[in-house]
Formats: sequence, structure tokens, C-alpha cells
Amino acid sequence: MSLLFKQLRIHQVFGANTDVGKTILTSALVRASAAAQHKVFYLKPVSTGPMQDADDEHVKRYAGAHGGLVDAHCLYRFDEPLSPHLAAKMAAEKSGLQDAEVPSDSTFVAAVASHIRRSASSVTQKAHMYVETAGGVHSPTLSGTTQLDAYRPLFLPTILVGDSRLGGISSTIASYEALQLRGYAVDSILLFRDEYYRNWEYLTPYFAERGVRVDALDPPPPRDADEEKNFNLTEEYYTAVVPEAGGGLFEIVRHLDDCHARRLAELESMPARTLDTIWWPFVQHGLVKGPADVNVIDSAWGDYFTVFNGHTAPARATPASLLEPQLDGSASWWTQALGHAHPALTLAAARAAGRYGHVMFPQATHLPALKLAERLVKDGPGKGWAARAFISDNGSTGMEVALKMALRAYSVRHGDELAPGERKKMGVLGLKGSYHGDTIGAMDACEEGVYTCEWHDAKGFWFDPPTVAIRDGRTVISLPPSLAEDDRAGAMEADSLAWVYNVPGRLDTPLAERYRAFIRTTLQKLEARGGPPLGALVLEPLVMGAGGMLFVDPLFQRVLIDVVRSRGTARDPSSWSGMPVIFDEVFVGLYRIGMQSTAPLLGVAPDISVHAKILTGGLLPLAVTLASDAVFRAFEGESKATALLHGHSYTAHAVGCEVANETLDVVERLASGDAWTSAREAWGGSEGHAVGVWSFWDPAFLDVVSKASVVDDVMTLGTVLAIRLKDVDAGYQSHSAQTLLKSLNTSIASEEGTAAPGGAPFSIHFRTLGNLAYFMTSLNTPAATVRAVEDRIWAVLDRAGA
Amino acid sequence: MSLLFKQLRIHQVFGANTDVGKTILTSALVRASAAAQHKVFYLKPVSTGPMQDADDEHVKRYAGAHGGLVDAHCLYRFDEPLSPHLAAKMAAEKSGLQDAEVPSDSTFVAAVASHIRRSASSVTQKAHMYVETAGGVHSPTLSGTTQLDAYRPLFLPTILVGDSRLGGISSTIASYEALQLRGYAVDSILLFRDEYYRNWEYLTPYFAERGVRVDALDPPPPRDADEEKNFNLTEEYYTAVVPEAGGGLFEIVRHLDDCHARRLAELESMPARTLDTIWWPFVQHGLVKGPADVNVIDSAWGDYFTVFNGHTAPARATPASLLEPQLDGSASWWTQALGHAHPALTLAAARAAGRYGHVMFPQATHLPALKLAERLVKDGPGKGWAARAFISDNGSTGMEVALKMALRAYSVRHGDELAPGERKKMGVLGLKGSYHGDTIGAMDACEEGVYTCEWHDAKGFWFDPPTVAIRDGRTVISLPPSLAEDDRAGAMEADSLAWVYNVPGRLDTPLAERYRAFIRTTLQKLEARGGPPLGALVLEPLVMGAGGMLFVDPLFQRVLIDVVRSRGTARDPSSWSGMPVIFDEVFVGLYRIGMQSTAPLLGVAPDISVHAKILTGGLLPLAVTLASDAVFRAFEGESKATALLHGHSYTAHAVGCEVANETLDVVERLASGDAWTSAREAWGGSEGHAVGVWSFWDPAFLDVVSKASVVDDVMTLGTVLAIRLKDVDAGYQSHSAQTLLKSLNTSIASEEGTAAPGGAPFSIHFRTLGNLAYFMTSLNTPAATVRAVEDRIWAVLDRAGA
Repeated sequence: MSLLFKQLRIHQVFGANTDVGKTILTSALVRASAAAQHKVFYLKPVSTGPMQDADDEHVKRYAGAHGGLVDAHCLYRFDEPLSPHLAAKMAAEKSGLQDAEVPSDSTFVAAVASHIRRSASSVTQKAHMYVETAGGVHSPTLSGTTQLDAYRPLFLPTILVGDSRLGGISSTIASYEALQLRGYAVDSILLFRDEYYRNWEYLTPYFAERGVRVDALDPPPPRDADEEKNFNLTEEYYTAVVPEAGGGLFEIVRHLDDCHARRLAELESMPARTLDTIWWPFVQHGLVKGPADVNVIDSAWGDYFTVFNGHTAPARATPASLLEPQLDGSASWWTQALGHAHPALTLAAARAAGRYGHVMFPQATHLPALKLAERLVKDGPGKGWAARAFISDNGSTGMEVALKMALRAYSVRHGDELAPGERKKMGVLGLKGSYHGDTIGAMDACEEGVYTCEWHDAKGFWFDPPTVAIRDGRTVISLPPSLAEDDRAGAMEADSLAWVYNVPGRLDTPLAERYRAFIRTTLQKLEARGGPPLGALVLEPLVMGAGGMLFVDPLFQRVLIDVVRSRGTARDPSSWSGMPVIFDEVFVGLYRIGMQSTAPLLGVAPDISVHAKILTGGLLPLAVTLASDAVFRAFEGESKATALLHGHSYTAHAVGCEVANETLDVVERLASGDAWTSAREAWGGSEGHAVGVWSFWDPAFLDVVSKASVVDDVMTLGTVLAIRLKDVDAGYQSHSAQTLLKSLNTSIASEEGTAAPGGAPFSIHFRTLGNLAYFMTSLNTPAATVRAVEDRIWAVLDRAGA
Repeated sequence: MSLLFKQLRIHQVFGANTDVGKTILTSALVRASAAAQHKVFYLKPVSTGPMQDADDEHVKRYAGAHGGLVDAHCLYRFDEPLSPHLAAKMAAEKSGLQDAEVPSDSTFVAAVASHIRRSASSVTQKAHMYVETAGGVHSPTLSGTTQLDAYRPLFLPTILVGDSRLGGISSTIASYEALQLRGYAVDSILLFRDEYYRNWEYLTPYFAERGVRVDALDPPPPRDADEEKNFNLTEEYYTAVVPEAGGGLFEIVRHLDDCHARRLAELESMPARTLDTIWWPFVQHGLVKGPADVNVIDSAWGDYFTVFNGHTAPARATPASLLEPQLDGSASWWTQALGHAHPALTLAAARAAGRYGHVMFPQATHLPALKLAERLVKDGPGKGWAARAFISDNGSTGMEVALKMALRAYSVRHGDELAPGERKKMGVLGLKGSYHGDTIGAMDACEEGVYTCEWHDAKGFWFDPPTVAIRDGRTVISLPPSLAEDDRAGAMEADSLAWVYNVPGRLDTPLAERYRAFIRTTLQKLEARGGPPLGALVLEPLVMGAGGMLFVDPLFQRVLIDVVRSRGTARDPSSWSGMPVIFDEVFVGLYRIGMQSTAPLLGVAPDISVHAKILTGGLLPLAVTLASDAVFRAFEGESKATALLHGHSYTAHAVGCEVANETLDVVERLASGDAWTSAREAWGGSEGHAVGVWSFWDPAFLDVVSKASVVDDVMTLGTVLAIRLKDVDAGYQSHSAQTLLKSLNTSIASEEGTAAPGGAPFSIHFRTLGNLAYFMTSLNTPAATVRAVEDRIWAVLDRAGA
């Protein structure tokens, strides 16, 4: 939602502390911009203290000969010379109104953005705007949020006013670093030239090394008690720093203009440069038409990308922002847990980088890795069954590790039965539609399908599983042909989602018996055929994401595990039986579908599980493979050759582990918070049997969408929403699924109440796969945003069905 | 280096700004510690301003009834009330001495550390120490480095004195974040209770959420002009905040004691907890004897880990630090380029996290990824041949991508000739001893050897390569039996390393002809045998690291490439010929062996190359696979199914890309800097032919070590030093290679001049593989450190040979 205009160059001005000369230097900039014949907007969003001392008044008073070009404005004004959060609270108390009258961050940001947009639409030629913040960078704003975080959605280019006093080197650098922690681009640092402390002398080369220009300006005259004399002295000062002849401040204004021009030019050049250099994952470059097909992401915040539209948007009559908010509707490949650029995760990354960098892991330990391992093994998805955590870099490597573990455990126990060379051919048992990553080992555990490559050599057998969906308002279990028997169309109606996911309650049903018999018979046939042995059962519990958002009937997975385990006998009761069971929870785990782990719902624990994606909150790659003690023991011995010979250079990198710990801390707080409780209650709460069956998406919305004429079925759990459109070939609809999806993808949600932070309409970036559209929230997406997306989806589907 | 004593609890005191009451609050802490009957050390490393105002004098004056327990000390004192860097400069100028007289950071840190150690060795019971810094967190210290960075080697637990004035919320939070960026643990925040601004009221819950305790204390009385009255008022104040009855400051002292005790208990518990939960990469847990085998890394900085020795060190008579510096002698699995916890890399990570978090990459672009791709393709290792950059997570995934690229390109061109199923069996051509990572695809491109697992199915043919080493002072090329012919012992003496690495100059030698003929014959034989086709030539240029630090004769690799290419004919001259050539530069690339890329030295470019490890400076995982345009075009088409279907959730994560860009910026400055020039000159400079043949290790050291009686041969390039000991079975030596290596590994280098920062002796953490020991510096390891390691190695080898 960040704002960028071609004609209007905007800078926000932050101070390294209060009383460092922010207003004086901003006034000088305003005056210089006006003197250069630009229309100049000055905005002081929040002013505290008496009116006659107000910064916007000062700016107007000293705007100089071209003051007519200056438009100075203040949005929130308070009399008390206090930090804004106290002043606002005091004013609210005085007025007798409730605490709630203090504007929220989103109201505040929307007010600033709206003023900026209004100003932008009034300009006809190049104009400048300076937004002056209050106090220091981290001074709290009205709601109490510190300014750096409160202004972050606007992501405006920044001028930092440095501190020229004793101690000012420190406050200037610390403020700069705090700005960096929010990603702000600092275009310029300005401070007074104090000849005793000479801070500018230190700061100029310090920041030159960091690519930031520093300018030192003469300090203003001391305040004179006589008002008129004071005015004259001050006016003289401004005349000196903004000389008519040019130089001084003009050079800085030109520098800021250059920064703005470079920013625009860079954004404009990015699509073509990207098409010239980047090889994208999973993209057929032959189908990319040109620059308009490149999503230029300038920054991101919370649930939104900020994308550059200057290369795609039609030239509009009124100046529009060249950046637009775009809802990250697939949670960036299902990684986002806390939204983009979450300050706590940034700080966690910085903390670990600052303490360790990366330290090599074999036979070593450090707190971030140890704490992460302990919490996952003992209090997380491994609780009750896991003994060890093996850390690697991503879901795919985590699955390679899991497969190495399972196959070794199997071949250690069945060593005598395996002919030479048979180890290499051992297969896995799984489900059709599985996906475990793109490294060859992870691929080989899946059937050949869309995802394949030259060396892909699928090893194993995959069942065609029954699936669950909501169709026309009813919960339906669809059986594959192999299981359908006499059910017409292979579909069985179920009482409710809660009934379907009550796995223990269904173990004695006829369907369970049918699953059991079918699985037993199939395994017997496979054995009779005498192929290579199957050494692991590999499942994505409940949902197969990449395979097409298939919600598998959990009963089938449970029965499959039970049958596999019943066919073996563990040497000791705590060990695995039949073959080791791997849960690939990379997609479903850690609350993506509303539950920390799927084991409690299924009523059985795996022997090995893999976790990634949400693990690091959506910031950077890390994976953990958990294993039972029996699996771990299979590698123990006296020779290094029998160890688990797997590792990556950055195994257990401290930054990733620390970010993961921070993420899990925040997620655990969310899980017991009000927002989740409300969402759960909408789905019937925790009454009775339904462990974890709830969603951030509204049940009534699901119901109505499932009845839309263009919709085949829908499904949801936790953050996931999947909508399957009727097939293009079905014929009775005017819009093809593809066209419909496309229109949804590119539509701008501009209805009342569906705005991104800052009040801007937003587009939705989501993923499609054939006639499937799926949407994904973060774990902290506001309910209002989810409702807005639902409204938008409904508007498109409803129109399409009409 | 970082210091931790059982009996002596140390805290450094940083201020959120100058003049925030740091000395008053520290004095109160000192007084409270003394009142609690502890010996108390107060250290003011640098004091500026007149003696009578000096902080250590203030501390002594108001130490209270138990002042006899207080030992107050100042290390550097300057009269001028200025920032230390200016005061020191002014004093140096006044004294007529040179600028060089201003103490360097390492002198400064050593002085502080030495004072701490001296104090620690004088205590017989629990004691406290407070180290009070000057000004704000980022105030420059004597050399001009800001305090946060200058004190970082000491990594002391921290008290932050907050700012209670207007603007103080901002400076307190910004200072806290600057501390976090260096990894410091902040145990406590103290500030004055200002009833008007009420900063403590805001800061207490703010920091409680972040796990940091905040305490607000009554402000001191205003200074009275009358000295005696002032003393009495001040003394009254201290009596009030440190009441004899307990409470007030005592509670904070107890809290700090608790933090210290928890820190100790945590470190002590870590080995056992690690052995209970962690599954290490590449470690045979059966060979791990117990807690003493766990390397507990408390923090790291520059070239050093700081390891906890409380669980291994014998109880000593005098109190010793429980933390000891350990040189990261293998650059943490060859990842480190700029040393641990480099502030610029931390800030880069923070900047990208704050701006983007992670944003999904397909059909998208963002500046960090685009800039990284462009620099690698156009100005980096891809210069002159690469067209595209594909980003993934680590060396292993980068190689899987490379293999998918090469095999597809080959099978698209030779589609007609490949029988169904033959694509899966296509092999690669490579060298024995290759290692490309631990995912199955990367493994399948290598022979079965030490690194294997159930699904490993080596596909291809691997030549036994000739290697280069320095033996007994002479440069020797060792030929494998297949190539040896009539050379006795298969070894040929070469003129010099420079001669060996002048590849173009050797193309017409008889040896080149022998290589050529041998490779041609072998390939013809393979073809005649009629096995599956070979679809890619895969090489680790110049050095095979994991395979045993094998320095391959570069001429052999060059001739191999030439022969392979001469056997095919590209459809157009810019395309690959024979089969695509992959350079796995994960280990050797980006200056690890002294050159940005190996292509210029070999005189031929690959079609695909892979880069990782150093790429991110040693902070977190990222890999880039570069490809020529012809390889890219092999995937272009109209169907998604023919695209390169590979991707990871965090593909092109902004944090990794930004850190990589920052790393490459710094490395490029290093590459043209004085330190590298000196090292190059020691190796004969760039005269004539020897492209890139130089090392951070001293040629004279190499020479003498190669002649040691226990040494078989040695080799070096760039940062790498490999020492191969004579085989244990050789019989004529008393020390076995393993024992010798072990003694080297655990030795403490305590000789004069071989100290880590802070003056402490250090151990060396390096890697061994059989009878091979290898060492690795970063790209910015000081020459003095390298010399110290050389001395240490020589001392052990010399003693062993005696």
C-alpha cells in the first residue's frame, strides 16, 4: 500500500531524537523546494504542544518568497507537549470520550495516505512532499505503536535528521539501524554543523561507506525572547541556508530528486531486466508474454505485497500511485505465518546473526538449535513419540533425510532378506497425488506425474485415495473407482466435516472395513507379485497440497497406517512395526490447517515427521526431521560409515533456528488468542469429537460458494480455502474456469470496507492449478481481511453464475 | 575474547544516550552489590572530562558503608569532555606523538579483558563487576569504532540505562535494537522515574513482551552548587535507593545474579541436553563418548567461536574464564568469507527482512534477487558465458538443478536416440572423489564411496585423476595407475605451482597428449560397451574438497573438457558441444581458492555452474545455478510440463539475496585491498602466467612443512591448507597420524603473539579426514592470525618429527 507517484516526490523525515532540528531542516527543505519552483506539500501528521509553536505554523511562517507554493497541513493536533500517545490519551480523557477514541494505527495510516493521495491528485507538474514525524524514530504515535512500525505500511523514502549534540553520533547510528530493521531506504542524513562535537565529521565517512549521503548545515540562531527580532534572525538564517543563488539546500533537494528518479527508473527497468536474467522456478518462460507478466514486488508488509504497476497500468487522467497493494493470497507458497516483514522475526534474525553468524554443527551445539529441537521433540509435533531432531535446509532436504532414515531402519532390520542391489530398488507406499519436494530422492517417493524430470525414478506403490469436500452445501466423501463398489458415482454423503474428522469414531463403520479389506488385499497382491520390498509408508496427512489441494479422507490414512503396522511385529513394543511411517507435514503442520500436528486427529503418531515452511514464520529456509528413538538407533554403531551421512553447509544455521523459535512463540500466543477462538466458535467450537476441525474462512461462505452454479466443490481447514470450478468442458456455463479464475486474480477489490491498510483498493495474488483456485491466509490475518476476500470471491462467482 | 567466570558475575553498562544517568545508576548498583557483601569491581575503560568529574571517582565517593569492598578503576583517561575518539586524538596531538598512539581496538579490548582476568583471579568468593561504557551505545571509542562493535569480542551480558527524558522512549528502543544487532543479551533496563514523561510506563510492558525486565528508579537530586551540600544530598539519594533494609536496588542485583546463574546452568546443561535431542549431520553418535565431546558454542565473532569449557576443563587453582576462544579453522564447513557476526551482513539480513520478509518468486521479481542474478551472470563467475541465474537453497539443491538442466538439454538434443526408460539411466562423466551434496540426485552424480545410502544409485563413469601436491619441497604431479605408464611411482616433478596452473602453457606438453589419448580411448571403450549415454560432464574444478582435498591437475580437467566438446558438434556455435559441462564451484568458487571463478585459469567456460557457501558470506543458505542461453532454451516451449519444474518454498528469499549482495560488495573490496596484494606478492605476484596461484598461507611455511618427517605432502590455494600425514602403517614414526592430528586439534596456542582478541590463548577447531588435516581461513582473516596458526602447526609437527 506504499505510495509512489511520478510527479510527486515524497520523503518522510525522521529524527535521531527529539529536538535535533527536524522542523528547522524540514522547513529549509520546503523553502528550497519552493524556491526551485515546485509545489511543496508539508505534512505533520501529529503535532503536540501549543499551536503557536506548531511545526506546520513554523513551516508556513518561513516558507520564503515562494511561500505561495507551500501547502502545510497537520492531521492530529494536541496541546500538551508530550509524546503523541500520552497527548492523545490525555485529550481523549479530557473530552470525556472513551479510550477507543484514540485513532488506531490503521485509521492513522489511512488518514496520512488519504492526504497524500489527495495532494498527489492536485498536482499538475513536479511537486515535493515532506512528511515530518514526531520526536525520535521510535517515539510512540497515537495508538502507542512506535512510529517506525506505525508508518511502515506507507514505506516512504526517508530523510534522517541526525543529532549534532554530545551523544549524537550514537543516536544517529542507532536510529539509522532501527530504520534498516524496517527496511526503509534512507536517502539522506542531515544534521547541524556543531563545531565543538563535530559529529558530522565522524558520520560523513561512516555513512558514505554505507552508501548514504550526509550533509551538515549551519545551526540556527539561538531563540531570541523578542518575537520580532527572533523572526528576523530566523528569516536571515533561512535566507542563508537557502540562498537565492543556489547551492546549500538546493543541492540536497536535487539529490532527493535524483533518488526519486533513480527509484522510478529502477522499478521501470526491473521487468525487462528480470526477463533477461532470471530463470524462475516452475515457470514456462515460453508462456511469459512480456514485462506486463512480471510481478514487481517493491516491498511487502503483513498480508500484502506492494507491487509496481507503472509498467502495466493504463495512463490515468489523475495521478495514481505507481505502487499498489496486492494481497498475498497464497501466503507466498504457503510459507507465511505472521505476515511479511514482522518486526519480531526481523529482530530475531538480527539477534542470531549478531551473536553467532553461522557456526558449524557437527558435534557442536548452540542455544537456538537446541531450543528449537527440544520444543519440537518434547512440546511440539514430536510430543509423545519423537526422540531426535535432525535439522536441514528445506522441505525437500528434510524429506530426503526422512527417507534415508526410514529405508535404513527397514534395511537394518530386514538385512538378511534383501538381495544385493535390492536396497537401491526398495520402494515406498503412498498416495497418488503426493508431493514431497523437487530433489530427486523426494521425487522418487512420488508417482510420475506433472512433477518429473530425466532422473525421476518413482519407486513404490501409491493408492488412489478417497477425498473429502463440500459440494452443494453437503459434506461428501468421494471414492476412487477402485473403492467405489456399488456407490453411485463413487460419492458418499457424510453428516458434517466434524463427523468426517472424528477418526476414532469412524473406525468401526462399514467404510472403515471396506478401506481395511481393500488395503489388505492390495498389499497381498503386491507381495504376491514379488517386486522390490516397500520400506516406508510416506503420507502427507489430511491434505495433499501440491498435488491439487486434495483433502484425503483421514479415515483412509488412519486405516492404511493401522494395516501396515499390523502386518509387522516390532522387536520391542516401542519400535516401529511393518515399516517406518513418515508424515510429511511440511505443508499441513504447525497450524497451517488449524492444528499443530495431524497425529492427534488421526489418533496415531508417525515414526518420522518433517516440518518446514511455517517453521520460520515465512522468512527463510529451514527444515526439521523428527525421528523416534528406534529409527535413531538404526544408525548407531562403531563406524562412521553407518552414520546418517547427510548434512548441508548451513545445517542448523543460528539465524533460521532463532527465527523459528520466535515464530513458534508468537504462534503459540496466537493459538490461544481471541481471534482463533472466534474462528473456532464459528465452526462449532470444540464440542465433542471434532479435534481441530475449524477454519479462518467462514462456514456460511463455504456453504454458499459450494452452491454456486460454476463451483464443483469447496473445502477448507485452518488457513486453506480450495475452490474447484466445474470443468470447462461441462458446457453449460458461459465463463470457462480459466477465464473466471483469471478475472478473480486480476480484479481490484475496491468495495467499501475491503481496503488494504491505508485505504487503498487491492488486488489478490493467488494460485490456480487447472480448475482449482486456492487461497491461504497467514495465522494472523485479520478477520476483516478474510471477510473482504470472501466478499470479493463471492462477487466474481455470483456474477459468473448469473 | 568473551569472558565468563563462576564466581565473578560481570555486566557491561550501556547508555541509551549520553547524560541519561549511567554513572548514577551504576554507582547505585555498585553500592547495592557491596551492601550485599560482595566484592565489587567497577571498571570505566575510558573516561573523558576533568578528573574531579570522573565516573570512577563518583563511584568511589558514594560507595557507602561497604565501600571497602569496591575496587574502581579507569584504563584510559582524557581531560577533554568529548567523545573518546576525539579526546584520544586531541591528547595524542597535544603530546606531539603520532596518530598511531591512539590505542587500536584490539589493544583496547585486550586491556579491558586483562583487567577483568586480573580481577577474577583475585576473588575468593562471589563477586560482581560493572563495566561502564561511555556515552551512548554507538558512541565511538578510542580508535573511532563505535562501542557496540569495539566491545563485541568481549560479549559481556548487558545492562541498558534507558533515557527518561522527552524522546527517551525512542532512544531506549533504538539502543536496544542496536544491541540486538550485535547479539548482546540485555538482562536489565534501568531508567529514572520521570513523572511527567513517564517513559518507564511505556517501556515496562514493551520490554516485558520481549522478555526484558525494566526498573524505574527515583531520579537523583538536582546538583547543588555547594560541594558539601551536594555531597550530602547525593549521599541521601543513594541511601534511599539502596536502603539498608533491602528492596529497591537489591532486587535488581538479585535479578542480575539470577541471570548469571541461569546462564551458567544453561551452558552446563547444554551438552547433555544436546546428546539427548539432537541428531547431528555426519556424526556417528555411537562414537560420541559423552558431554565432553560436545562443542558448546556460546557465541562467535570474526575468526573465533567462543566455547564453553566448564564441562571439560579441569578445576583450576585460579578462577579461569569458562569461555575460551577457538579458532574456526575450517571456516565452519568452508562457508565463512568475512568471519562470524559481521555487522554489515547482519544489517543486510535485517534490511531485507524488514522490507520484504520473503516474497514468492515465480513470475515475480525483487531487487535483492535481481541484483544478485545480474552481478553473477554479467560481472561474476558467469561473465562471458552465462545467461540465466536459477536460485535455490544450498549447494546440493543447486547441483540437482544443474543436473536437471544438463540432462534435459542433452535429451532434448538426442531425443531420437534415447530408448524409452533410457533417460532415467543416463549417466554423467566425472572424476573419482567427486562430491556434490547429499540429496539423492547430487549423490547419483558421484561414485559410491564413503558417502552413500540405500537409494544412492551412481550413474556414470568417473576418471581417476592426476593430482598436484608439494612433497619434500618439490611440486609433484601424481598420476593414477591408469595413467602412470612408465613413470616410476606415477609421480612427475613440476617446475613450480605457477607452472602447473599455467594451463594454456601446458596444452602442447607430452603430458597433455598423454591425457588426451587416454581420455579419448576410455570414452571410445565406454561407447563400445554400449551402456546408457553420458549426458553431462560434472566437475569440481581444481579442488575436490569433500573427497579428501584433492588438488586435481588442472591440465587433466581442461583436456577432459576439450575432448568431450570435440566429440560433439553444436547446432549453433554458441551452444554446448558433446555434452553440457557443469562446474560445481560450491567449494572452490568466489575466492575460496583465491580466484572468483576457475574458468579463466582453465581457459574454458562451463555451460552450467553452481555457487553457494561463500555466496552468503557464511551466514545462511542460498545457492545459484548459472546457465548458458542454449541450456535455458532447451526448456522453452508452450507447455508448463517442459518447464524446469524445480523450486523451493523460499526460493530467492530476499534475506539471503541481500546478504549475498553485501558479501560480494565486501569481498570485491577485499580482493583489491592491501592484505590480498601482500599475500599475492609472497607467492610471486601476478608476473607472467600464473593466473590466481596464490595463498593466504606462507610459501616458506608450505616448504618447510612439506619437508617434515611426519608429513607426506601439503598443498594450498587461496584460503585452503591441506596437510597429508604419512600413513600410520608406515611404521617409522612414533606418533600415528590420528594421534598427531588430535594433539593439534586440542592444543591451546598460548605462545607469545598468538592470542585471540582480548589476549586469550586459543584452541584450533579444524577438520580431519583419515590422515588428512585441512585448515581454512576466511577471506579477511588477519595475516597475524594465519602466521600464529602456522607457528602452532609447525610446533606440533616439529615435535612429532623429533
